[in-house]
Amino acid sequence: MNKRVAIIGAGPSGLAQLRAFQSAAEKGAEVPEIVCFEKQSNWGGLWNYTWRTGLDQYGEPVHGSMYRYLWSNGPKEGLEFADYSFEEHFGKQIASYPPRAVLFDYIEGRVKKAGVRDMIRFETAVRWVQKSDAGFDVTVCDLPNDRTYTESFDHVIVASGHFSTPNVPQFDGFESFKGRVLHAHDFRDAMEFSGKDVLIVGTSYSAEDIGSQLWKYGTKTITVSHRTAEMGYDWPDNWQEVPLLTKVDGNTAHFKDGTTKDIDAVILCTGYKHHFPYMPDDLRLQTANRLASADLYKGVAYVPQPDLFYLGMQDQWFTFNMFDAQAWYVRDVIMGHIAIPDLVARQADVADRVAREDAGEDDYDAIWYQGDYIKELIADTDYPSFDVEGACQAFKEWKGHKKKDIMTFRNNAYKSVITGTMAPIHHTPWKDALDDSLEVYLQN
Amino acid sequence: MNKRVAIIGAGPSGLAQLRAFQSAAEKGAEVPEIVCFEKQSNWGGLWNYTWRTGLDQYGEPVHGSMYRYLWSNGPKEGLEFADYSFEEHFGKQIASYPPRAVLFDYIEGRVKKAGVRDMIRFETAVRWVQKSDAGFDVTVCDLPNDRTYTESFDHVIVASGHFSTPNVPQFDGFESFKGRVLHAHDFRDAMEFSGKDVLIVGTSYSAEDIGSQLWKYGTKTITVSHRTAEMGYDWPDNWQEVPLLTKVDGNTAHFKDGTTKDIDAVILCTGYKHHFPYMPDDLRLQTANRLASADLYKGVAYVPQPDLFYLGMQDQWFTFNMFDAQAWYVRDVIMGHIAIPDLVARQADVADRVAREDAGEDDYDAIWYQGDYIKELIADTDYPSFDVEGACQAFKEWKGHKKKDIMTFRNNAYKSVITGTMAPIHHTPWKDALDDSLEVYLQN
Repeated sequence: MNKRVAIIGAGPSGLAQLRAFQSAAEKGAEVPEIVCFEKQSNWGGLWNYTWRTGLDQYGEPVHGSMYRYLWSNGPKEGLEFADYSFEEHFGKQIASYPPRAVLFDYIEGRVKKAGVRDMIRFETAVRWVQKSDAGFDVTVCDLPNDRTYTESFDHVIVASGHFSTPNVPQFDGFESFKGRVLHAHDFRDAMEFSGKDVLIVGTSYSAEDIGSQLWKYGTKTITVSHRTAEMGYDWPDNWQEVPLLTKVDGNTAHFKDGTTKDIDAVILCTGYKHHFPYMPDDLRLQTANRLASADLYKGVAYVPQPDLFYLGMQDQWFTFNMFDAQAWYVRDVIMGHIAIPDLVARQADVADRVAREDAGEDDYDAIWYQGDYIKELIADTDYPSFDVEGACQAFKEWKGHKKKDIMTFRNNAYKSVITGTMAPIHHTPWKDALDDSLEVYLQN
Repeated sequence: MNKRVAIIGAGPSGLAQLRAFQSAAEKGAEVPEIVCFEKQSNWGGLWNYTWRTGLDQYGEPVHGSMYRYLWSNGPKEGLEFADYSFEEHFGKQIASYPPRAVLFDYIEGRVKKAGVRDMIRFETAVRWVQKSDAGFDVTVCDLPNDRTYTESFDHVIVASGHFSTPNVPQFDGFESFKGRVLHAHDFRDAMEFSGKDVLIVGTSYSAEDIGSQLWKYGTKTITVSHRTAEMGYDWPDNWQEVPLLTKVDGNTAHFKDGTTKDIDAVILCTGYKHHFPYMPDDLRLQTANRLASADLYKGVAYVPQPDLFYLGMQDQWFTFNMFDAQAWYVRDVIMGHIAIPDLVARQADVADRVAREDAGEDDYDAIWYQGDYIKELIADTDYPSFDVEGACQAFKEWKGHKKKDIMTFRNNAYKSVITGTMAPIHHTPWKDALDDSLEVYLQN
């Protein structure tokens, strides 16, 4: 009997998995029956923008963390699909830091071409997964019809991401602060804060990018509070970095060095959690956000239960192309072309990955570490090999450009490692490009 | 063997259930083993204020819908516990419209006295409930330890409320509106909107009360959009009622009559959903928000599966004392003092309740209908009988006071139906009382 495979989530990882199976089928292989469960009404995961925050129209936690006017914070040359170039999709080479709508269009282009939409059950939330004798029982809720049902699968592939469930710390005084406190997950439009004094807590990509947007769209002052170290870029005049927030008193924020700042709003850029509320203990991944995830053999097969897979659970330099490398690998495991070794070997694999990551000294080591991981996976499958080294180089240049000027780095261009062509310089510097639509971005 | 009973939620309903069992134990009865699962870190349900919105520190949907400066919108004389008066708790009679902190203190007082806190497992979210041969398997997550486990129970009592999961409609233009869109569930501090032009959608209690707060705390203008009819109170000068919102274009709201209004924020006061994501189809209550809930025999026992109970699922004139009446009734069913009839009789009971509610013509009929329901339940148990008629009269007076002046109705006082004493007139008119603390409120 044909195997049945459940994929949880139709974002970049889940779509990579659908494309991986479809690509095998296209070449004549007999592939398992695939069912992809997606909570949202459309595919794209985080790239499917929503104005909603908190809970959605069905009372489910909103998946989207993305905000308006978001441009990629890394060059597209680091995430290009090896089997579907930007040039194939847009009919020409495009500039290197596309806004959200452009990247959504690109992600969608590949899976439209692959014709995999019928495999996705939209507006269907996974409620509970359990190990059964034969495999897994997956219980879901068909949200528009408010109907729950359970189906059995031989494999489950979790592709629900780890940038949707905010990590929200409490600080003294939040309970009586008279302004707004929100997590980056609920940030939607920088214009809500124009003319305001905004405090950002955290130094992650969210802090860097939301702060930069606030600056671009007219926030009065931006104050960024760090726990351990400043981001250290050369910020604009109305931007300051301060030590950790100790408390808020009335509308005054107090910091560890005794300084204070009157603020209108607090945006917590304090990261996200790996959160799988539909998973019992024996199936639930528990890991820090790092390059070598805990408990995943080859970064994908759940060590205690290797019929279960997790995609994209690593901290990420590489994104779409890494999800592809993982999805092709998982496909070949499920289709019997790659064997998973015994428990001891799986544990040793994870320990080795952790040790190698820990031995790295800086971000450059981390970039090459993750590049090597991708090379390792694609060597075992028919995913088109590509110049991973070139992508690492693009990331290195990108870091240099950010260091040089954090408010102009997006004006640079890089060379595609898939097609070998140079991206054009964008027609408008990022800081002056207030319209983030696809139509305007493509006017090169 | 002693029965085991699971209670889901430690808000007013769940606490009423704990108190009901404890009161029987106090009188010498042998009571079942009770386990109450509460997602929050403290009891009180909605009355446990949190600054958090969206998802909480564990990634779970925030239960709280309550905002700062909230005062009861109905007289306390309509909700007083028959077994624990306001005078017993505060040592004196107090004014009739207490702020949140005062009501929280009162709710807590009774259960502290009863000594039931040990029965509650805090920070424990229910993940999934299933019918088993013997009763129910309840799977929960111990959130701080990120550990799931399953226990078996003879009965499950759902007391998780129905004012926590927002109903959030979409209107054209929300996806490109440059201001903030939020549901009442996420409203926390009226001062976030001072000086702003705010659009409220809806005419429920949330619309009425949040609008009134905005007025009290300095919002520039309040525009309330209705689908069917105006609320029709005599609003202040900077408050207007308009027909249904048709779209938002830029920062301009358009209404059905062709008028427009420029706005800074939209607050959706569009109600809440009955939402039990941890329940499979055969156990999940699906009902409109009405006085005669679907599928609940005597308003509490789930008709298809009467070992399962739901508390407080009705639309509410009466609150705390109705939850008490229900909790005492459910206790006596579980303890074998009250028999549940067969399926046909249970269905007939619900049909009769629906027909009687439908026959009512106005709010006064609805108040007396719900008063009669309470009388019906307490006649069957040892819950202290009280002057339900008097409470109905208090609600009637309250409605008159609102009609007379929506911004002063909270300055009135009513007579306790438990102790027979009159409440004092509050020391400060509601519109001038900006400090909502317990200490200040009790200075009568």
